[in-house]
Amino acid sequence: MLSPAPWPALRAIYHVTAPNAAELDARVESLLLEQTVELPRKALRDPFVLDQILGRLAGTEEIAPQLHRVTIDFPIVATADDPAQFLNVLFGNSSLQAHVELADFELPTDWPGRASALPGPKFGAAGLRQLLNVHDRAITSTALKPIGLTTARLAELCALFAQGGVDLIKDDHGLANHSFHPFIDRVRACQKAVAESNRASGRQAIYAPNLTGTPSVVLEQLRVAQDEGVGAVMIAPMLLGMPLMAEIVARHAKVPIIGHPSFGGATRTAPEVLYGKLFPLYGADASIFANFGGRFAYSKGTCGRIARELTVPTIPGLTPTLPMPAGGIKYQQVGDVLDFYGTDVVLLIGGGLYEAGDDVALRARVEEFVRHVKEFKK
Amino acid sequence: MLSPAPWPALRAIYHVTAPNAAELDARVESLLLEQTVELPRKALRDPFVLDQILGRLAGTEEIAPQLHRVTIDFPIVATADDPAQFLNVLFGNSSLQAHVELADFELPTDWPGRASALPGPKFGAAGLRQLLNVHDRAITSTALKPIGLTTARLAELCALFAQGGVDLIKDDHGLANHSFHPFIDRVRACQKAVAESNRASGRQAIYAPNLTGTPSVVLEQLRVAQDEGVGAVMIAPMLLGMPLMAEIVARHAKVPIIGHPSFGGATRTAPEVLYGKLFPLYGADASIFANFGGRFAYSKGTCGRIARELTVPTIPGLTPTLPMPAGGIKYQQVGDVLDFYGTDVVLLIGGGLYEAGDDVALRARVEEFVRHVKEFKK
Repeated sequence: MLSPAPWPALRAIYHVTAPNAAELDARVESLLLEQTVELPRKALRDPFVLDQILGRLAGTEEIAPQLHRVTIDFPIVATADDPAQFLNVLFGNSSLQAHVELADFELPTDWPGRASALPGPKFGAAGLRQLLNVHDRAITSTALKPIGLTTARLAELCALFAQGGVDLIKDDHGLANHSFHPFIDRVRACQKAVAESNRASGRQAIYAPNLTGTPSVVLEQLRVAQDEGVGAVMIAPMLLGMPLMAEIVARHAKVPIIGHPSFGGATRTAPEVLYGKLFPLYGADASIFANFGGRFAYSKGTCGRIARELTVPTIPGLTPTLPMPAGGIKYQQVGDVLDFYGTDVVLLIGGGLYEAGDDVALRARVEEFVRHVKEFKK
Repeated sequence: MLSPAPWPALRAIYHVTAPNAAELDARVESLLLEQTVELPRKALRDPFVLDQILGRLAGTEEIAPQLHRVTIDFPIVATADDPAQFLNVLFGNSSLQAHVELADFELPTDWPGRASALPGPKFGAAGLRQLLNVHDRAITSTALKPIGLTTARLAELCALFAQGGVDLIKDDHGLANHSFHPFIDRVRACQKAVAESNRASGRQAIYAPNLTGTPSVVLEQLRVAQDEGVGAVMIAPMLLGMPLMAEIVARHAKVPIIGHPSFGGATRTAPEVLYGKLFPLYGADASIFANFGGRFAYSKGTCGRIARELTVPTIPGLTPTLPMPAGGIKYQQVGDVLDFYGTDVVLLIGGGLYEAGDDVALRARVEEFVRHVKEFKK
């Protein structure tokens, strides 16, 4: 029997591996803290934070040797009724810990801000079936592909599929705004092909273009597609950002959304690549990553390669940026960390300062931290 | 010696596990096809696609027992000079295959569209150091936390850190637009605290607020923050979407960007949760996921749970939506797939249709597929 939390809760269920009971306790405690306060428990003194923000352990259960089902309630107010922060509370930093998997979650029944945070589907199965006029059987679907065909050829294929009776004809998720099939031309030609086929057949086949790009590009594509009369659109939310999909549904979409899984397993990107190369290429001037010996268990080798890639980019023409190792650096480790990274680094220490104690102790520790860094010589 | 591609190439290096040589060959072939054309090789007939779109294997090397370094060149034109499509070509669908890890990549030296696709950092290490006036030592940083404190208390901490000599004071990444420390109030109060401390000390400490939310919210936060004079901002691009960060840098940012890793390991979300719950909660009316027996190796149990969650949501009040299993369903398997999912499903078959052959064969197969679905009885 799991104990209920004293406030409306986002209940998260994690699968946690742990070699023994002591390690399990430590990992559960880490999960409780990581997703909201991100501070050691002893650094928490504010009563509102302790009562209303900190997650509560609802229960643990061993489901296989060394594998545990850990149920934690987080106060729903921690999500700020926001789609990005919701993900962050659910599986933000903890997603980086190899021993944790998000297994499930439950929303509170009492959550007035839910519609603001998570729009949910606008059409759903019933709406899609109505648009397609398909009620008593499975819906058929195929994809327009491959990228590289001409717009005319894609439209020809679209006509073929529509005439052949396919219900839902979507772009391949790799069809972007390529010069050989620009988005606007493609949407016009394919939508025309489907509409003509529908007029002839009496069916209600739908063409769903793939929306991709930065948010402003995607919104413009959505506008064009809807103006052209498409029956649905496709989005890969892990690629474009889950919050963008939520915003599109909440504010802009007049047609159903098909979610595509691309980039859904992107964690299997080497950390050197994600933080060392992709973060700066997408514009970050400093990149935070998990330091060795901290809560997220990257090796010194990995951290060294991330830092080297950021400070001396192997990508020609890329401006050097700054590594920002973090995640459980103790202020006592500042010397070691500086020895390792040198001075081309942003030293990010949070909990290691806060856990000093009251404001006087905190101030003293801050000054010690600052002095230590200033006095460090390569 | 790796052979060069005949066109400017995005060179991707994957680590691929394979139990034997035949399996390695199959997995390499799959990687070659998956990231661009997403069709079986025999379904590729267009000469432009074969010459200019399809990736080329540059080499493989066994780096440990059953572990191979596989180097593939993708034509840079496949990225459409777009930040989202760049990620998709680099590690879109293949990120879902457990035997593949993205180990590294190299950009082509000859890529006129690079700045349009990937802005790169605007300030870099030198710009950040100049803003902070810190040149000959490591930069110090800490985070304002935990969420749940009052705005006044966060500003007090900000002052404490700035007065203590910390260079870069950033919001914790969990500080969203919460009622207890609304974004605008927090940014004003914390920026004021840092500015006052700087005036007194002569230092150039920076306060960097955390931007989070949907794209329009994030852009408005950026505007407010820049108007208030903040020295930098923080973004978690895996949470918000990598393309959003690129757009912010390319079009809106006047200050450096700090990249935060939250949600970076999100693949350790159970597929039932990612596709069954999160996709619809964020607004998808139909969710594509990897079918059992296909290229991405989800189990029947997993697929069944995803489909059940979509069609009979356990989340109260959530509109039922449609599962869209895909990824290598053969048209011959339609009966099995329907037996498994029933009719509450969108059957997505791409390559399984295209590989029929020419347009006549393709049309015939489409009609067979459609007929099969129509005749299926639960």
